[in-house]
Amino acid sequence: MRSVHARHHHYGWDNSLEPVLRVAPGEMVELAALDASGGRITADSTHADILTLDAEHANPVTGPVWVEGAAPGDALVVDVLEFALSGWGWTAIIPGFGLLAEDFTAPYLHLSVYDDRRVEFTPEMHLPTRPFAGTIGVAPAEPGRHSAIPPRTVGGNLDCRDIVAGSRLWLPVAVPGALFSLGDTHAAQGDGEVCGTAIETPLTVRLRIGLEKGANLRAPRLELPAAAAAAAPPSDQAVTFGIGPELHAAARDAVRAMVDLLDRDYRLAPELAYCVCSVGAHLRISEVVNAPNWVVSAYLPRAVFR
Amino acid sequence: MRSVHARHHHYGWDNSLEPVLRVAPGEMVELAALDASGGRITADSTHADILTLDAEHANPVTGPVWVEGAAPGDALVVDVLEFALSGWGWTAIIPGFGLLAEDFTAPYLHLSVYDDRRVEFTPEMHLPTRPFAGTIGVAPAEPGRHSAIPPRTVGGNLDCRDIVAGSRLWLPVAVPGALFSLGDTHAAQGDGEVCGTAIETPLTVRLRIGLEKGANLRAPRLELPAAAAAAAPPSDQAVTFGIGPELHAAARDAVRAMVDLLDRDYRLAPELAYCVCSVGAHLRISEVVNAPNWVVSAYLPRAVFR
Repeated sequence: MRSVHARHHHYGWDNSLEPVLRVAPGEMVELAALDASGGRITADSTHADILTLDAEHANPVTGPVWVEGAAPGDALVVDVLEFALSGWGWTAIIPGFGLLAEDFTAPYLHLSVYDDRRVEFTPEMHLPTRPFAGTIGVAPAEPGRHSAIPPRTVGGNLDCRDIVAGSRLWLPVAVPGALFSLGDTHAAQGDGEVCGTAIETPLTVRLRIGLEKGANLRAPRLELPAAAAAAAPPSDQAVTFGIGPELHAAARDAVRAMVDLLDRDYRLAPELAYCVCSVGAHLRISEVVNAPNWVVSAYLPRAVFR
Repeated sequence: MRSVHARHHHYGWDNSLEPVLRVAPGEMVELAALDASGGRITADSTHADILTLDAEHANPVTGPVWVEGAAPGDALVVDVLEFALSGWGWTAIIPGFGLLAEDFTAPYLHLSVYDDRRVEFTPEMHLPTRPFAGTIGVAPAEPGRHSAIPPRTVGGNLDCRDIVAGSRLWLPVAVPGALFSLGDTHAAQGDGEVCGTAIETPLTVRLRIGLEKGANLRAPRLELPAAAAAAAPPSDQAVTFGIGPELHAAARDAVRAMVDLLDRDYRLAPELAYCVCSVGAHLRISEVVNAPNWVVSAYLPRAVFR
């Protein structure tokens, strides 16, 4: 299998970047990804080190990989095969970033270790290890350099927790060769990634990159097999609700209520509770039709505390 | 067990309504609920009959039940015990209502039958039967009559698909006696209820209504046991994404992409596909932090087609 070392990374998306590898459709490749800080957060880092991070150097991605024959209107068909784990990760509250940026203004860093089965978030809290690439995409059609932070219809920082081994991701190709890259790898994350970070960790990702001609997709799409969907055993769930006329505000209310519940039930400090929500709780839209009020629900598997 | 007949229903929420039953905390009760149309949609109804529905007479709820000792600041603790099924349900597109009201402007009605195991949506499409009350709540503090359509922080039309048998729901009490009611019962629904209706069906609901003094909740909350959370076996999932700066628009895009996928993979007419999304697909917020773009994902278990 052909490999790309993590030193072949770039910051932001730019369709003028030189490919680091050229593959034929159907080839397997292995890409080594840096963590979202590009290695600047280490096991020795402190809360204050979070302030050294800047958006310009967030989410380095490994690539780009040129796919022979890929042209605008096609789709890359990416089979996610396997992850080689690093065993160490971090979660942070970055001032000005995250769903509750107004509530949490101080830098905060939490370190975890994990194996192929579970993340030890603290000695009392564990999550199923469920590795994926938070950022996975192809170069946009628009010239110039585009921030790595927002996801786009060509993919990028999707932070979809289900792009796991066994899944198949379609990405709309916007430029010749597609120029595929990935990074921002996570050992676990909740739907929403509410504090703005997951279990951030360097990983090596094995993929098969296929090509579907003339797919004409408007956005990525994913197929998730039953075995991958059911990775975690069922658990009791605590559910909090945000109810109101704006989904974003409802999401904030649901997460605030979960932070309160984690204080009440487990005596967690708010910063740690917010990070637990980001890595282990899941935001669902219960209803988005009963005008003028919608319901966003935060689901926390209580197995986190077993 | 004490029962309330479905003829004891009311339209909208009003804290001046006379209770139809008075219970002590911890008592079991049985409430018979009409469907969301109050019986106006029947097995003989046609698409055109949808136009006879009006918001004033939507979601009749059975009650109100006075809970002895309940006072503002307390919470009702509702254990959902069991449902008696009616075996028949409907799903509709109601012009002007629903997440894609701009795309679907004509009335549309789809009828289903179900048993305690599964809903036969069509001979080719099945959903796990998962009954719950779409509308469940207590009277608001504000005087006057309030529409039954929007959910509020005292509950109401939450349409949370996980308020199933085995779950425990806390509702913040706003007036003396709480004045509990429920209705809008569903045999199955997806997260989002995107077309505005689920498998709408009359059901009888058995509950135990407890009381927690001084709970001081700002909104409902729910506990969902593992057995109830895992009612459906794992299934392959098709996932579509909506990506953009506004969650509501992203939800629309994710559902539109799923309607397209259902056409492509199963040759479903758009109206039927939209209804399938409402009863069987689930809206999740994959990320809500990578400004300026958020990701809403629609998950459809492919087991619907087996």
